[in-house]
Amino acid sequence: MDYKAAFRNALDQVHSEGRYRVFADLKRYRGEFPKARWTRPDGSQTDVVVWCSNDYLGQGQNPIVTQAMHQAIDEAGSGSGGTRNISGTTCYHVALEKELADLHGKEAALLFTSGYVANEAALSTLTKILPGLIIFSDELNHASMIAGIRNGRCEYKVFRHNDLEHLEALLRDAPADAPKLVAFESVYSMDGDISDIAGTIALAKKYGALTYLDEVHAVGLYGRQGGGVAERDGVMDQIDIIEGTLGKAFGVMGGYIAADADIVDAIRSFASGFIFTTSLPPALSAGAAASVRWLREHNEVRVRHQERAATLKRRFAEAGLPVMPSVSHIVPVLVGDPVHCKMISDMLLADFGVYVQPINYPTVPRGTERLRFTPTPFHTDEMMDHLVGALDKLWSRCNVKRLGGYAA
Amino acid sequence: MDYKAAFRNALDQVHSEGRYRVFADLKRYRGEFPKARWTRPDGSQTDVVVWCSNDYLGQGQNPIVTQAMHQAIDEAGSGSGGTRNISGTTCYHVALEKELADLHGKEAALLFTSGYVANEAALSTLTKILPGLIIFSDELNHASMIAGIRNGRCEYKVFRHNDLEHLEALLRDAPADAPKLVAFESVYSMDGDISDIAGTIALAKKYGALTYLDEVHAVGLYGRQGGGVAERDGVMDQIDIIEGTLGKAFGVMGGYIAADADIVDAIRSFASGFIFTTSLPPALSAGAAASVRWLREHNEVRVRHQERAATLKRRFAEAGLPVMPSVSHIVPVLVGDPVHCKMISDMLLADFGVYVQPINYPTVPRGTERLRFTPTPFHTDEMMDHLVGALDKLWSRCNVKRLGGYAA
Ligand SMILES: Cc1ncc(COP(=O)(O)O)c(C=O)c1O
Ligand SMILES: Cc1ncc(COP(=O)(O)O)c(C=O)c1O
Repeated sequence: MDYKAAFRNALDQVHSEGRYRVFADLKRYRGEFPKARWTRPDGSQTDVVVWCSNDYLGQGQNPIVTQAMHQAIDEAGSGSGGTRNISGTTCYHVALEKELADLHGKEAALLFTSGYVANEAALSTLTKILPGLIIFSDELNHASMIAGIRNGRCEYKVFRHNDLEHLEALLRDAPADAPKLVAFESVYSMDGDISDIAGTIALAKKYGALTYLDEVHAVGLYGRQGGGVAERDGVMDQIDIIEGTLGKAFGVMGGYIAADADIVDAIRSFASGFIFTTSLPPALSAGAAASVRWLREHNEVRVRHQERAATLKRRFAEAGLPVMPSVSHIVPVLVGDPVHCKMISDMLLADFGVYVQPINYPTVPRGTERLRFTPTPFHTDEMMDHLVGALDKLWSRCNVKRLGGYAA
Repeated sequence: MDYKAAFRNALDQVHSEGRYRVFADLKRYRGEFPKARWTRPDGSQTDVVVWCSNDYLGQGQNPIVTQAMHQAIDEAGSGSGGTRNISGTTCYHVALEKELADLHGKEAALLFTSGYVANEAALSTLTKILPGLIIFSDELNHASMIAGIRNGRCEYKVFRHNDLEHLEALLRDAPADAPKLVAFESVYSMDGDISDIAGTIALAKKYGALTYLDEVHAVGLYGRQGGGVAERDGVMDQIDIIEGTLGKAFGVMGGYIAADADIVDAIRSFASGFIFTTSLPPALSAGAAASVRWLREHNEVRVRHQERAATLKRRFAEAGLPVMPSVSHIVPVLVGDPVHCKMISDMLLADFGVYVQPINYPTVPRGTERLRFTPTPFHTDEMMDHLVGALDKLWSRCNVKRLGGYAA
């Protein structure tokens, strides 16, 4: 067996499809967000504007958050030193779980090391607790939910994206007495569309199913206190399990679920991905708690964020750029080809100081490759002028499809 | 379907087996390690000595590490703001990967959000890259390796713990031309025994298998520079993939693999658990890099650590306490029953200010429940006096089995 060749072949395949990923080495400067210093592969450096961060509100730079982290490091040191059960539970974890439960109006919350692990661990564990569980999963659910569903090895049915008729047909077909769970997201982060949460809840109730909602791209961003789209829509109390991240709008890292105390306690007691891993450092727990608390009280940041996103969409549309029909803060622009997508992204970075990653397979389906912009409250009108001008030039230079057909 | 009852039943089962876990709420005080403040469920507080931390060397309190974290927060803020591919790669990640590759003498290293995720993601992905892969897995491998092997859905064979004859029999039985991988650990953290790495490598070579070694409980702790047991044994260059954590001896959080550049690049390109998750915060990467660098140069810490562990084992044995035959820094004492184990641990905490978690199923097999002590360089002779005295009293009080039979 020639292992060297096998690994090389796998890489050659990725290269040949034009989707080999080169990570841009960026250093963000605190206080200058969304600017960052980019280090080129040759070691030289230049300043760029980051247009694709999931630090949607710039909380990574908020002194409230960084101060809480400094303080926790000064008080308790760098790491937690253990799994949650074996010396790794601190007052910071306890306080953060309380804060998150409160944010979502639930009895309890449970921390995981990431949103990915939260989804994988929670979904794969529910099968153990509810033998015979059938999971109904939106076809565009995130890789981490799919991992949880597959790893749990329960029966699952995939419904067409946001298609409640299809979901109902599948629910109707399933045995009435089988335990069921509908797993879906609020904001789908690559398209920027938002699911019909109330409609999904109604179906779940009708067919006796639990609901599991991933609000990773919505917590901190929607609802009067940043509880997510379910809060905005007034249905937070009717979702059985809400899953979120501390790594996007909250600006730190980590993930969680919030639910009834018994559900949380059962997942806490059975989930391998929760039990067998070092817990979050005190500093991350403290920083995240400060971020959640602050964002609950600063709805004006959310208002400004939505305004910035609406403005960028309008500006792209006016320039005839193929902005996709997002109803959220996410602004995707279709390219439709991995090589083009990477090329435009490379030119934006090298020639215009604009950093936006190409979004290629496997993150999105082949043929829907895109650039995905995430304007924050800190992106100015001038930055948008510059961005729209740059894209306009490149769309012409590369002859990429516009809204109404190809460019000249 | 009565979901409430189902969750309650699952919890009742855990309670009835005496293995319901109550997390102790601890706050470690920087500079006073291994002491910590314990908050009782009723909110009152008392100081305790932590005897079960996996912050084996107290690096969580090392100013070198906390300073590096402070500095990264001051420079770059709290979180990375993205996945590694989408704006979440910083100079801190790049530098840490270089440091880890260098530590293990490999071409490259790849960071994950935890050691758990490193194992799960790397092992489940190798199957995709090497179709038809057969994994040979030690029966006591950690839950995260088992998760990776199961989730990859390849064929796998479990060999008896540290039993090279059994491993050889299984390798011999497998088709000669199938890709193969032997997955094992160096230090088994619940028993404290150490595998025969050179012997395993020899077998792997004989049968054309790759080797995957989990050094989670050894990195920072063994070898001239803390490269692990493989470094100590002079065989680090012959292991194909080394996996480690930043959350134990290095005192922070995160995980990694180190290997040939092509292996690392292929896993980087295909592993879902690597791709689809927010990257480590700059502060964790910076803190971990500082910790690795410092430990490479301070072998005297490792010497002191081994001395402390040897002393505690000797003291336990002299007191007739059933210390298990560990050859590492881990000092397990057998109890053999989950209810006894929890009771002794509760009394140590409440009556003696000694914090050591009961280690019950599913962390160890039923019937082998134990207390697991991890003396660090900061545990003094006086602390050991106190601990041995406390255990001696409790062993008599609870009539638990001693080395030579039951106590009076
Ligand atoms: C919908 C969704 N769920 C979960 C995750 C994982 O969250 P985290 O980055 O905290 O691992 C992501 C993105 O990373 C996501 O887009
Ligand atoms: C052998 C082994 N591998 C991997 C892990 C996971 O590492 P981490 O705590 O960094 O997730 C652990 C413990 O947590 C372990 O004991």
